[in-house]
Amino acid sequence: MTVTINEVGLRDGLQNQPLVVSTGDKLALLSLLEAAGLNHIEVASFVHPKAVPQMADAEALVGMLDLERRSYSGLVPNLRGYERGKATGLSEFGLIMSASETFSERNVNMTLDQALQSNFQVVRACHAEGNHVRVYISCSCACPYEGRIDEARVLGLARQLLDGGAHEVSISDTIGAGTPQQIYNLTHPLVVDYGADRVNLHVHDTRGQAIAMVWSAYLAGVRSFDASIGGLGGCPFAPGATGNVATEDLVYLFNESGIETGIDFAMLEPAVRFAEQITQSALGGKSMEWWRRKR
Amino acid sequence: MTVTINEVGLRDGLQNQPLVVSTGDKLALLSLLEAAGLNHIEVASFVHPKAVPQMADAEALVGMLDLERRSYSGLVPNLRGYERGKATGLSEFGLIMSASETFSERNVNMTLDQALQSNFQVVRACHAEGNHVRVYISCSCACPYEGRIDEARVLGLARQLLDGGAHEVSISDTIGAGTPQQIYNLTHPLVVDYGADRVNLHVHDTRGQAIAMVWSAYLAGVRSFDASIGGLGGCPFAPGATGNVATEDLVYLFNESGIETGIDFAMLEPAVRFAEQITQSALGGKSMEWWRRKR
Repeated sequence: MTVTINEVGLRDGLQNQPLVVSTGDKLALLSLLEAAGLNHIEVASFVHPKAVPQMADAEALVGMLDLERRSYSGLVPNLRGYERGKATGLSEFGLIMSASETFSERNVNMTLDQALQSNFQVVRACHAEGNHVRVYISCSCACPYEGRIDEARVLGLARQLLDGGAHEVSISDTIGAGTPQQIYNLTHPLVVDYGADRVNLHVHDTRGQAIAMVWSAYLAGVRSFDASIGGLGGCPFAPGATGNVATEDLVYLFNESGIETGIDFAMLEPAVRFAEQITQSALGGKSMEWWRRKR
Repeated sequence: MTVTINEVGLRDGLQNQPLVVSTGDKLALLSLLEAAGLNHIEVASFVHPKAVPQMADAEALVGMLDLERRSYSGLVPNLRGYERGKATGLSEFGLIMSASETFSERNVNMTLDQALQSNFQVVRACHAEGNHVRVYISCSCACPYEGRIDEARVLGLARQLLDGGAHEVSISDTIGAGTPQQIYNLTHPLVVDYGADRVNLHVHDTRGQAIAMVWSAYLAGVRSFDASIGGLGGCPFAPGATGNVATEDLVYLFNESGIETGIDFAMLEPAVRFAEQITQSALGGKSMEWWRRKR
């Protein structure tokens, strides 16, 4: 059994840091992550540099990567961002939309339907040009404004996206408010109907439930998981949200369960340490705290 | 659906604190826990006061409780401890043995077989006198000396204890080194063969896997769980072990999943705060960190 861990610390992690990390430091962190065995890495977001100054070096960063070597991806907010991303030579893209009407309106000033149509523009472009596209359905479990989101609505949206050409959807608990059973309900029908290669899970550990949600998704058949080194992250638009689930906690879970990740737990420690340095913050999931005490 | 959460902070939590907490402070913490809805509480350990000075007031503490009001229990190391506990009027007792030969020898200076025979003395006495007895199988997942413990050995031990008259066994991951699948394997056969009322789960959150293990046990049919307010605890004999899984993280998990605990999450906050005061340490599971940020 094998799972894929998609490292999002460089994007979802760093974009939420008050400090702007230099391109050189991002590359150094990337090297450490790759040395530990991470092969799927989201490296940048092609948003407007005024909106997210932390991602202003997206082209410069991707320009320094050997795109043949690993599976690198970039987040794009719309067709314009996709054009920028495509020009760098990347061939894997992430899109985001929300499952919550209110969140969508407050966050991107679009109704859900407008956001869906905007995403479909990019999905169609990716299809036409042979690029891979994953759509994140944020607030899949709950929304900071609307509270719990109806499961049927999320599943309906996911099916629309998958039927409409998205290679993958990511069930995303942006504010870490989900439960294991909810995650099962949101992923199992999709894995059954579309296959495991079309479903990803993206969770935050805000209330300490992330690893339970990851395991529940694994039991539901999900084999692709986002995570962020040291638990870096948050969401500037979601009050109270904290970091993504820590890569090391996920690697620990799967490695100890005899499920292949290809990632060396011990080698994640230098990456966490370096991420702490460049963000000037204390990081590390519980498994990393344990590892550090032990050494 | 209903689960029982057995609060062990007063025993497993406080016995591992460098400070000795006064009987009055223990009673005050107890009141806060009860006000939040906790009805199953392990209040003391009848060990030798020289070995564990934090528990020296066991008789004094139990003497001040209304034993009809709640389900209070005490830990007893052997027949002599049981006699002391029985004299206080308690009718529910916990025993501990290890699934690891080395841990048993180093911790209580007995082989596994000797420990088993010692426990059976107490089990028989409890039976004869109409008292309830639960046996904790510590190191059920792994031992700090032997590493991973064979699942068949743990299950064999559990069956011996249940067949021999123990009302319950507790699968105990003393050092928080287990995985969700392992917990499933260790609990599901027992629930199937003996029933859910004869199996408890006791886990520590050392590597951030506790809530996933709890959920996995729930899926296996377990309905009784130990937890410690704020994650208080550790094990003086198990190097690198940290606190029990935090009561609030477990309450959050079940309450949000629509599974009845009878416990009010918000009311746990004053209990965590008071536990922090009397132990002079920073406590609180991730769900409590979230709750405190939110307020």
